[in-house]
Amino acid sequence: MRPSGRAIDAMRPISIELSPTRYAEGSCIIRCGETHVLCTATVDERVPSFMKNTGLGWVTAEYGMLPRATHTRMRREAKNGQSGRTQEIQRLIGRSLRAGIDRNALGERQITVDCDVLQADGGTRCASITGGWVALRMAVNNLMKAGLVKTDPIIDNVAAISCGIYAGQTVLDLDYAEDSEAGTDGNFIMTGSGKMIELQASAEGATFSRDQFGQLMDLAEKGVAELVAAQNAAVA
Amino acid sequence: MRPSGRAIDAMRPISIELSPTRYAEGSCIIRCGETHVLCTATVDERVPSFMKNTGLGWVTAEYGMLPRATHTRMRREAKNGQSGRTQEIQRLIGRSLRAGIDRNALGERQITVDCDVLQADGGTRCASITGGWVALRMAVNNLMKAGLVKTDPIIDNVAAISCGIYAGQTVLDLDYAEDSEAGTDGNFIMTGSGKMIELQASAEGATFSRDQFGQLMDLAEKGVAELVAAQNAAVA
Amino acid sequence: MRPSGRAIDAMRPISIELSPTRYAEGSCIIRCGETHVLCTATVDERVPSFMKNTGLGWVTAEYGMLPRATHTRMRREAKNGQSGRTQEIQRLIGRSLRAGIDRNALGERQITVDCDVLQADGGTRCASITGGWVALRMAVNNLMKAGLVKTDPIIDNVAAISCGIYAGQTVLDLDYAEDSEAGTDGNFIMTGSGKMIELQASAEGATFSRDQFGQLMDLAEKGVAELVAAQNAAVA
Amino acid sequence: MRPSGRAIDAMRPISIELSPTRYAEGSCIIRCGETHVLCTATVDERVPSFMKNTGLGWVTAEYGMLPRATHTRMRREAKNGQSGRTQEIQRLIGRSLRAGIDRNALGERQITVDCDVLQADGGTRCASITGGWVALRMAVNNLMKAGLVKTDPIIDNVAAISCGIYAGQTVLDLDYAEDSEAGTDGNFIMTGSGKMIELQASAEGATFSRDQFGQLMDLAEKGVAELVAAQNAAVA
Amino acid sequence: MRPSGRAIDAMRPISIELSPTRYAEGSCIIRCGETHVLCTATVDERVPSFMKNTGLGWVTAEYGMLPRATHTRMRREAKNGQSGRTQEIQRLIGRSLRAGIDRNALGERQITVDCDVLQADGGTRCASITGGWVALRMAVNNLMKAGLVKTDPIIDNVAAISCGIYAGQTVLDLDYAEDSEAGTDGNFIMTGSGKMIELQASAEGATFSRDQFGQLMDLAEKGVAELVAAQNAAVA
Amino acid sequence: MRPSGRAIDAMRPISIELSPTRYAEGSCIIRCGETHVLCTATVDERVPSFMKNTGLGWVTAEYGMLPRATHTRMRREAKNGQSGRTQEIQRLIGRSLRAGIDRNALGERQITVDCDVLQADGGTRCASITGGWVALRMAVNNLMKAGLVKTDPIIDNVAAISCGIYAGQTVLDLDYAEDSEAGTDGNFIMTGSGKMIELQASAEGATFSRDQFGQLMDLAEKGVAELVAAQNAAVA
Repeated sequence: MRPSGRAIDAMRPISIELSPTRYAEGSCIIRCGETHVLCTATVDERVPSFMKNTGLGWVTAEYGMLPRATHTRMRREAKNGQSGRTQEIQRLIGRSLRAGIDRNALGERQITVDCDVLQADGGTRCASITGGWVALRMAVNNLMKAGLVKTDPIIDNVAAISCGIYAGQTVLDLDYAEDSEAGTDGNFIMTGSGKMIELQASAEGATFSRDQFGQLMDLAEKGVAELVAAQNAAVA
Repeated sequence: MRPSGRAIDAMRPISIELSPTRYAEGSCIIRCGETHVLCTATVDERVPSFMKNTGLGWVTAEYGMLPRATHTRMRREAKNGQSGRTQEIQRLIGRSLRAGIDRNALGERQITVDCDVLQADGGTRCASITGGWVALRMAVNNLMKAGLVKTDPIIDNVAAISCGIYAGQTVLDLDYAEDSEAGTDGNFIMTGSGKMIELQASAEGATFSRDQFGQLMDLAEKGVAELVAAQNAAVA
Repeated sequence: MRPSGRAIDAMRPISIELSPTRYAEGSCIIRCGETHVLCTATVDERVPSFMKNTGLGWVTAEYGMLPRATHTRMRREAKNGQSGRTQEIQRLIGRSLRAGIDRNALGERQITVDCDVLQADGGTRCASITGGWVALRMAVNNLMKAGLVKTDPIIDNVAAISCGIYAGQTVLDLDYAEDSEAGTDGNFIMTGSGKMIELQASAEGATFSRDQFGQLMDLAEKGVAELVAAQNAAVA
Repeated sequence: MRPSGRAIDAMRPISIELSPTRYAEGSCIIRCGETHVLCTATVDERVPSFMKNTGLGWVTAEYGMLPRATHTRMRREAKNGQSGRTQEIQRLIGRSLRAGIDRNALGERQITVDCDVLQADGGTRCASITGGWVALRMAVNNLMKAGLVKTDPIIDNVAAISCGIYAGQTVLDLDYAEDSEAGTDGNFIMTGSGKMIELQASAEGATFSRDQFGQLMDLAEKGVAELVAAQNAAVA
Repeated sequence: MRPSGRAIDAMRPISIELSPTRYAEGSCIIRCGETHVLCTATVDERVPSFMKNTGLGWVTAEYGMLPRATHTRMRREAKNGQSGRTQEIQRLIGRSLRAGIDRNALGERQITVDCDVLQADGGTRCASITGGWVALRMAVNNLMKAGLVKTDPIIDNVAAISCGIYAGQTVLDLDYAEDSEAGTDGNFIMTGSGKMIELQASAEGATFSRDQFGQLMDLAEKGVAELVAAQNAAVA
Repeated sequence: MRPSGRAIDAMRPISIELSPTRYAEGSCIIRCGETHVLCTATVDERVPSFMKNTGLGWVTAEYGMLPRATHTRMRREAKNGQSGRTQEIQRLIGRSLRAGIDRNALGERQITVDCDVLQADGGTRCASITGGWVALRMAVNNLMKAGLVKTDPIIDNVAAISCGIYAGQTVLDLDYAEDSEAGTDGNFIMTGSGKMIELQASAEGATFSRDQFGQLMDLAEKGVAELVAAQNAAVA
């Protein structure tokens, strides 16, 4: 029995609120149950210097958590710099979003996706990827409307979900209560057409079998399909 | 004529949304026109070591701005540490809120007020103080309901407003368009009963007369009265 | 009764020693009672990049305190970086001095005013501004003697004094004993002709009335007039 | 055709040199082709404070690369701090090694495994895990010989290998030439008995299918088996 | 011919002004020609933790240079931390002063000697040691007067002088003009009775013979004797 | 009697292993008894900006110690930045190696010598200089073979040895057991022809006589001669 009473393969309710801020070229707040992330996409017509004159665009991401997004207050990151965990997460978000982009079609400009967690209940990196894609989609739409980009550089949706082994069972979309107890947990980042972008599964102080990993992947495929549907409904 | 078309002594619309996050002991989003700040109050039963065994409580504050709270994206503070400006603002917020607190009645515990700017259009430090007081009020209410605090430690409301000299005229509640052009601007932090907590007025590369300062103070008294009314309506 | 026995409106003795160091383009040691600050002005023919080709000059300031300038030794700032307080003070000094400068007449060059506190007994930021102006005046004189600057870019004197409410009375020029006990203290930066550049008044854990603030301003005007006279006597 | 001429499923030659340094409680140099890593295990009878009085031991890891371990010299990490990549790698090594340890049997002590790359040709994190386990095994042997540990806390071997998709083919044990060109690459950390500890597979700017991932896992199982055999031969 | 016209073995004029600051337990400004250093000694009745309950005292030193102590302004160290050069110098000062102290007689307390260069014209580290000893002597005198220390812990004077090879000649007490051109320069720290505490001689991009080093040492012995006489005259 | 049983003037066994790494332009592992240092020389055709268009080359050095090079593990320098001691050592190595180089003949390019201590038993900075010269010699040989450098820029060998006063006796080549107990220890850096590059002798909390220093220098001359012979044998 899951703490939330959800079925093994049941996601938390998903909602995507568009344009919560007025300045960003694209933005949304994604809510996966009690995990809420503000995602903004900023278009910069300059690219990093190593990319100059390549004709290619770039998508990068940054991630942060407000100090009281969590049950107990965390030290503000601006006070002692980004942790290794934060850097790892934001590199993951950037890599994942780039997998859904045709950098040639985007042209020589950079889009920065900021994912700031307003409230955390597990799965913040997955929500950031899923919501980040929506902000990116909106920013690209604006570029196309403005005629700055001719061919849609977005190849496919990108979405992410966590799965894990909780109390001996493989479960979909871990919340914090499950995440903190799970023997194994993993993040599955996929495209709208079901291709894999990144898989991570880790067993802190434990192990899992190849069979169990297969079950996690089945759950993940189901979850990502639901997220992609929600993305498409939001930006329709 | 002000860019927004407002009268000289007209505030922007104020709204205060209570409890936008589920974990903090008190929280609100305050919106002063297009300036939006998420304020949370966290109660910690431990005080800093220099305060141990004094029987006195402490209120402190931290301030941050999301990277895309502004027209153009700012560098994330977690990447290179808090700027001097940020530190100056958060010390101001903490000092101001402490002026409205009876530290004896609060008892030996600490309340940390986090003010995170979601969207900025001028006056973020004033909005942080005004909204921070609401979060603090809610957290104290919870302490009293729980019987941990017997006498209300909140002596009075604390609110803040900016005024300045824009295009030669003294105006109330500067927005960003005015703030970036103003010859003189000031912040006025006051109590509900109209006492002064902190006054700051500064003329970058210019000067102002004692008379003009008197006019700014008249405007500030009007503005703070409206903010205090909004606070009281919100927490009623 | 003030700890020093001074009258309510009595300043500490002021002395300004010119050119204590041989290399700086302008320098002085200002002594306000037991507060002693070494001020040097350095002329740099290059301006910061954001100012290039504007034809405008710039004046900036830095502030520091020697570790044993105080009653008990403080940790050396070079060991853990400038505190927020130090950054706040040096920005204040820079802003204040710029208010007395015609940046056009100065021409595209930068003057850096360093204020290093040799001994501290309250009021170090005000002494830094008052002494910093003397160093700046001397450096500008040298630029004019050398024919590099044609029209005097110094519009007016700039000086600063602290006032506060000590033991219920408004007093002029707080020393450390008063400053550490004062309910309210403020810094008043003005020009030689009595215009305001910056006002700050703060009541840590307390409040003050508009009337009391008016009295503080009366005292400040008296004090600044005396400082301006001392500046003019020194550089005559 | 692979740049090295190896077959699709061929590992590079593995060698493990024991005790290259005289002070560490366990140490080896592992050489996987031209990737050479010095691994040392340090036993500390004190555990981190969060582990005190739990009766449980701890294994942690740190990772570094000498500046000229690579084709072109890299900036020395001691000059600007550990990169996010380095922190991510050393957390992975620590997590992986802990999965092979019975922390109860280890008792309240900490073992730190340092992995320093002397020469790099791809796969340094995998070589660090495989060699780190050997150093850990030796340190534990010494604890058992000294009678400080009664029951062998090492549950199973831990080893790691990279696989990826290079020029459209799934290949085992990527060297640098392959790694820098691969569309997808992954790290597979497993136990001696073939259980999974951690899986990571990532496609920078591309995707892969579930089938392809299955092939990568087949290769990984073959590779880890060879590494485990080499570990056992070394410490026999 | 030396730039200053001094004879090969002539020191610059030395003066030692006692007690320039009112708070430090011992202080002086030492002037060696145009090199001026403010030295203060602070007594702290607590020792660093590694020294607790040993019954031994400790003497340590810190060193700094004001930004405009030099011909052209240097970046303020508080802005980017102490340079390696600064750390090297302050460790040298501390080691040197400790060589003249009986740590047993001093008793379990720490004396911190701060050496802040107000104006620099070569030889600042040597002036810091020589002046630092005077500040230390005064602080110890105060401890003895107060009855906190019974037996004089100061065994002997400690003084330092630089010598070098300038324009092919060995010369005593290099000023900046010589120092910046010298092929070889060295620092000689000795006791009042002529014993060596520390010798350093370095030839940037050049070499010197053992004979030349002997001549440098002759000069140094002459110089230190003069410094010791000046110290004794000052504290008599 | 020395802890190692060596005669007063006996060096530890020296070995120099060439080219332990495949990428560096020159490299060796030098072993002086149980002190082992990996030295690599990296040629960079760009010089630092302050050297551009001077026609002169530059040699610089960096130094590090692996965490478990020592008896007890040291904190990894990449975690909190290079210590002052490390910076002091690497500047010494760079200065010393430059003394043996004709920067004109080297031409406008930079060689960086990295010295990483694999195992430490005293004398690591001296071993770094001696081994660093070998790596430099090899890199220069490669430049000459490639025709990039016409005239040999290496003027002479550079080697270094420590001497000290242990148990009242002057001894050659201190190992860690002696170093940690020695009243006085010094480092002597010389050329192949016996000229001095840098001398350092220091007595922590003690003193030494000019006579004793003469004996240390005699020992050093003997030791350096042996090191130079070993260098020449290695690179022959």
